[in-house]
Amino acid sequence: MLYKISLGTSDINKYRLIQSRELIDEVVSLGKDLKGLRLCHINSTPFGGGVAELLVSYIPLLRVLGIEADWQVIRGDRHFFTITKGLHNALQGAPLEEIKKQSVRRRYLSNNLSNARELDPNYDVFIVNDPQPAALRHYSPESKAKWIWRCHVDSSQPDATVWNFLRPYIQEYDAAVFTTKKFVPKNLRLGKITTMTPAICAFSSKNMFIKKYVCREMLENLGFDHNRFLVTQVSRFDRWKDPFGTISAYRLAKKEIPGLQLAMIGSFAQDDPEGWDMYADIQAEANKDDDMFIYSNLTGIGNMEVNAFQRASDVIIQKSIREGFGLVVAEALWKETPVIAGNAGGIPLQMTGNLSNYLVNSVEECAEKIVHLLRDPALCQRLGEEGKEIVTREFLMPRLVRDELRLIKSLVNK
Amino acid sequence: MLYKISLGTSDINKYRLIQSRELIDEVVSLGKDLKGLRLCHINSTPFGGGVAELLVSYIPLLRVLGIEADWQVIRGDRHFFTITKGLHNALQGAPLEEIKKQSVRRRYLSNNLSNARELDPNYDVFIVNDPQPAALRHYSPESKAKWIWRCHVDSSQPDATVWNFLRPYIQEYDAAVFTTKKFVPKNLRLGKITTMTPAICAFSSKNMFIKKYVCREMLENLGFDHNRFLVTQVSRFDRWKDPFGTISAYRLAKKEIPGLQLAMIGSFAQDDPEGWDMYADIQAEANKDDDMFIYSNLTGIGNMEVNAFQRASDVIIQKSIREGFGLVVAEALWKETPVIAGNAGGIPLQMTGNLSNYLVNSVEECAEKIVHLLRDPALCQRLGEEGKEIVTREFLMPRLVRDELRLIKSLVNK
Repeated sequence: MLYKISLGTSDINKYRLIQSRELIDEVVSLGKDLKGLRLCHINSTPFGGGVAELLVSYIPLLRVLGIEADWQVIRGDRHFFTITKGLHNALQGAPLEEIKKQSVRRRYLSNNLSNARELDPNYDVFIVNDPQPAALRHYSPESKAKWIWRCHVDSSQPDATVWNFLRPYIQEYDAAVFTTKKFVPKNLRLGKITTMTPAICAFSSKNMFIKKYVCREMLENLGFDHNRFLVTQVSRFDRWKDPFGTISAYRLAKKEIPGLQLAMIGSFAQDDPEGWDMYADIQAEANKDDDMFIYSNLTGIGNMEVNAFQRASDVIIQKSIREGFGLVVAEALWKETPVIAGNAGGIPLQMTGNLSNYLVNSVEECAEKIVHLLRDPALCQRLGEEGKEIVTREFLMPRLVRDELRLIKSLVNK
Repeated sequence: MLYKISLGTSDINKYRLIQSRELIDEVVSLGKDLKGLRLCHINSTPFGGGVAELLVSYIPLLRVLGIEADWQVIRGDRHFFTITKGLHNALQGAPLEEIKKQSVRRRYLSNNLSNARELDPNYDVFIVNDPQPAALRHYSPESKAKWIWRCHVDSSQPDATVWNFLRPYIQEYDAAVFTTKKFVPKNLRLGKITTMTPAICAFSSKNMFIKKYVCREMLENLGFDHNRFLVTQVSRFDRWKDPFGTISAYRLAKKEIPGLQLAMIGSFAQDDPEGWDMYADIQAEANKDDDMFIYSNLTGIGNMEVNAFQRASDVIIQKSIREGFGLVVAEALWKETPVIAGNAGGIPLQMTGNLSNYLVNSVEECAEKIVHLLRDPALCQRLGEEGKEIVTREFLMPRLVRDELRLIKSLVNK
């Protein structure tokens, strides 16, 4: 089960340059209180998706604070992950007929059983992310550890059958954490239910400061004309991210803003055939328009390029229809780039104040906001500053560390 | 067949800053001579591997010069590409039993036939890259265009059966181009056989100038300690790149240089199950060593990160056992980083002069050179400068454009 992931390093004191002394002091003090605590985060994939993105910067920060934090990834075969992808979608409300089959339930549970058997019993706290490994707690009956289930998706209206299946396993945990209150399924009964939003690392290659001229140079080398406007969407090629809605909005906006350019940047995760089909469809759209560019991790676009796109684009779009949190929104706001985003899931938690005017519910609204923003650079700048303030205050790693360590402290001191 | 690829832009005049006036003048003048020429490069993949890497910067440069250059990618299914991967390996000398089957030959040929039927007949010149689309010329009997076959692999000792199968199709071309004379199969009979080496783009995100402190900051964020040495290999997870040889050499060198760090950076191409297995094996090795890091395009490593690694590593290793050309060697040399590389394929063409002392034939030799270089920073600097001179003179895009346009001019003027 153990799978070494090349982790970053972190330095909590770097955050003193950008965050309040109270916050960092509290984080350091929580670290001291919990010094030597053995903590294990468990999820189902070493890369691809928000949870892995988060843990890769989060775990090193805990270690710096004196927590003996590890990250382990459960094993599973293609069948198991097909089931768990279904569970994941079902928590977001999509029906999953297969879950009625005994064989499907058995496969899910026997996988969790065999992973549970490989767990090191000496951890003090396990934090289990999302439904894939949710039954690990059930199969660790002897465990003296505290168990936290962390749900990253919008589970406000889960498919009833799937939820009835999962709920008893989740109710065995000491605590459950959701991104926002709205996401907590109504009939969940548990000792402690709490909320905390995810966060981004200010210093990773995705978010580190890169001078604007370097970003522009990179974009120019890729073929963009910096005399014309550029709007960009960064997200997996997934229907919930509504890429075709983004393309339609771009086309509408282009009628008002001739020469407008669009970049669609996606990444492919392991075993994601849906992503491939959608990529081909988006590619077909791009064939019709010289100003539309498609990029992915397969064409050499990595974290630094995404960073550069988020900094050098005039507007970032994230037209999600459903969204757990939407880390890319925080990433773009952190870079002072104005964002137009779907009014879905955890996005409104980030787009507060004046930014909430740029939450959209339709293609037309999205197009209109694009035109509005591109015509008003002073407004863009004000929104950019406001966005950065919000992220600095609420969505950087130390705040998440504080929330999680507070929770842990409350559990282990019981 | 047509597949739009998001191409970069290019500016030949940027090269005037770094290359000789004679070269750029000749390139511009060749462009004038061939103004309006319709040229089509054909290969089998829009990304992954050296040919795609090359064309993405090469085609825009031709366009700037006045050539109507296009890039088209042949279609094929999994079966076809399994066959062509076999042909590719067979040109490098690996046997391919399947080629004796009529059904396999038929599938290869019928794919080429159907792709040939989709070709626009109005091109003046077709340049067909590698064996996958090699029979296109055969299936275009009416074509008035000039046809060039460009072979990128070391085909000095091809598997005899495969070569006998392919040779007649290749001999229908007007010209064939190899990376070096050594690679030309002995019994190839053709109007014109010539050689030219590939080249890199000095201004792409992979090779553009990035200040060293930014590169170091990125590496630090990834977890590297810049108080200790770092050696890096950048290459696909492929046995011909000998990743385990690199790891063994690193381990030997580490006995002399305590704290030595190793980064192995690879990328996954579409449909490459071999890559996945090898990745898992390399990962298993990394589990045993806290100073060994594995990265790939799936964990957010893109062109800019590779650029940063090539600039901020103390030594770049490319321990290939077989190699067409090895663009990564030129990339590292361009950045003034010393390179230790396998004495294979096209690598010795790049590692000339004092650099040839760092061509290695064994793990032990590789380890010894690592220790030698890390102990002599002044030597590293001298080698770095020498490497950059070599690349500037021989392995940047304008030289390749010149070679190809000279060849085309000689063909179309006949």
